[in-house]
Amino acid sequence: MNDGGRGLFITFEGTEGVGKSTAIRLVSEYLTNRGIDHRVTREPGGTPLAEEIRALLLASREEAVDPTTELLLMFAARAQHLARLIRPSLDGGQWVLCDRFTDATYAYQGGGRNLDAELVATLEQLVQGDLRPDRIFWLDAPVAKGMERISDRAGGKDRFETERERFFERVRAVYRERAQTLPEAYRRIDAAQPLEVVEQALYRETASLIDRW
Amino acid sequence: MNDGGRGLFITFEGTEGVGKSTAIRLVSEYLTNRGIDHRVTREPGGTPLAEEIRALLLASREEAVDPTTELLLMFAARAQHLARLIRPSLDGGQWVLCDRFTDATYAYQGGGRNLDAELVATLEQLVQGDLRPDRIFWLDAPVAKGMERISDRAGGKDRFETERERFFERVRAVYRERAQTLPEAYRRIDAAQPLEVVEQALYRETASLIDRW
Ligand SMILES: Nc1ncnc2c1ncn2[C@@H]1O[C@H](COP(=O)(O)OP(=O)(O)OP(=O)(O)O)[C@@H](O)[C@H]1O
Ligand SMILES: Nc1ncnc2c1ncn2[C@@H]1O[C@H](COP(=O)(O)OP(=O)(O)OP(=O)(O)O)[C@@H](O)[C@H]1O
Ligand SMILES: [Mg+2]
Ligand SMILES: [Mg+2]
Repeated sequence: MNDGGRGLFITFEGTEGVGKSTAIRLVSEYLTNRGIDHRVTREPGGTPLAEEIRALLLASREEAVDPTTELLLMFAARAQHLARLIRPSLDGGQWVLCDRFTDATYAYQGGGRNLDAELVATLEQLVQGDLRPDRIFWLDAPVAKGMERISDRAGGKDRFETERERFFERVRAVYRERAQTLPEAYRRIDAAQPLEVVEQALYRETASLIDRW
Repeated sequence: MNDGGRGLFITFEGTEGVGKSTAIRLVSEYLTNRGIDHRVTREPGGTPLAEEIRALLLASREEAVDPTTELLLMFAARAQHLARLIRPSLDGGQWVLCDRFTDATYAYQGGGRNLDAELVATLEQLVQGDLRPDRIFWLDAPVAKGMERISDRAGGKDRFETERERFFERVRAVYRERAQTLPEAYRRIDAAQPLEVVEQALYRETASLIDRW
């Protein structure tokens, strides 16, 4: 897995409110305790320009956003994030923990918006070349469960959060498919479990990544 | 050229200050006088979201913008512009006059930034399908001549305008190549000539487009 001191690239995926941000915080603490230098970042975003693109993507707006526009904006943000943060960090030996990445594009733009997965794959290849996450933590729980967990969150909903439940069922279904297709990279974490149980699963998986590094 | 009442799609290209906006205004007036319904628009931009993407692209910024990011932002704006304005207008029988389009991407991101033309072609196909301009008016003049024409313009320079002269020489060279490769669509207008001469050339070309419509 490791290649001359290169850091590991770990992404956190799942539908709304399942516990991605919580998981990334736990794994980050674990790495810090083990003295492993790492960056925590998110998509879309991670650099000033990429965060500006994120703001365009999430804003609620009158104008209908064409699904291809949305897809290209996601990959524009990703190209910037890769060039300015992810690649330099990994090359410098740091691990990178990223809240969502290209699997979210397959799930949300592919599954949710019904865009052809081939189109996503073309852009993935074009923007990432051979770079893929070393580990994908898929926090999986029923859609309603995640929604419930964030139901008391302050602030308005963004352009994705206002989608209906069947949109997120399609999103979840794509994660399920990809976990089957990419068993080496994916680890499904049952996020419906109590947090202490999720935490133990994440620590165990992270420990084994450190061992193999 | 025409297909059941579909409008014609005409783009205006060239380096900075050669007279694209002037030309588009002249052609628009000519079409109005001939009673031909049309829209005038520009790239990047043309819809509220696409104009927001334009603002991201043109802003001067500390952060180095990855050339692939720039390319994807250009095509994101274009996908939105096509979906929301260009295709509906053409389908509704209106002509569309557009200040810059994909030839500018070949010229600026390909020639100027040295991105692979294959990459531009892949995205062109992905975003446009078979749609190409029916006519490309290439306003051509020495780079320095255009610069001179806009030298007294108020306001700061955008992220492209601050490029050096050899950047724009590469841009001009790509327009020259494309005019040779696509002689059916391209019309080179010698923009170094006095405005009255440019005007007559534009009227003549537009008249012949109307005749063939
Ligand atoms: N396993 C769990 N059991 C119970 N509550 C949890 C669990 N995991 C996370 N939570 C709580 O659920 C809420 C949402 O968690 P978190 O913000 O980590 O989700 P998220 O997937 O990052 O959400 P978003 O999709 O909005 O980014 C938080 O209040 C968090 O404390
Ligand atoms: N053939 C010409 N001869 C002399 N002046 C011209 C000619 N064409 C345009 N101009 C003048 O040059 C200036 C720049 O023209 P214009 O704004 O049309 O260029 P442009 O290509 O749209 O510039 P930009 O690249 O900044 O959008 C204007 O003041 C215009 O009146
Ligand atoms: Mg979160
Ligand atoms: Mg102009």
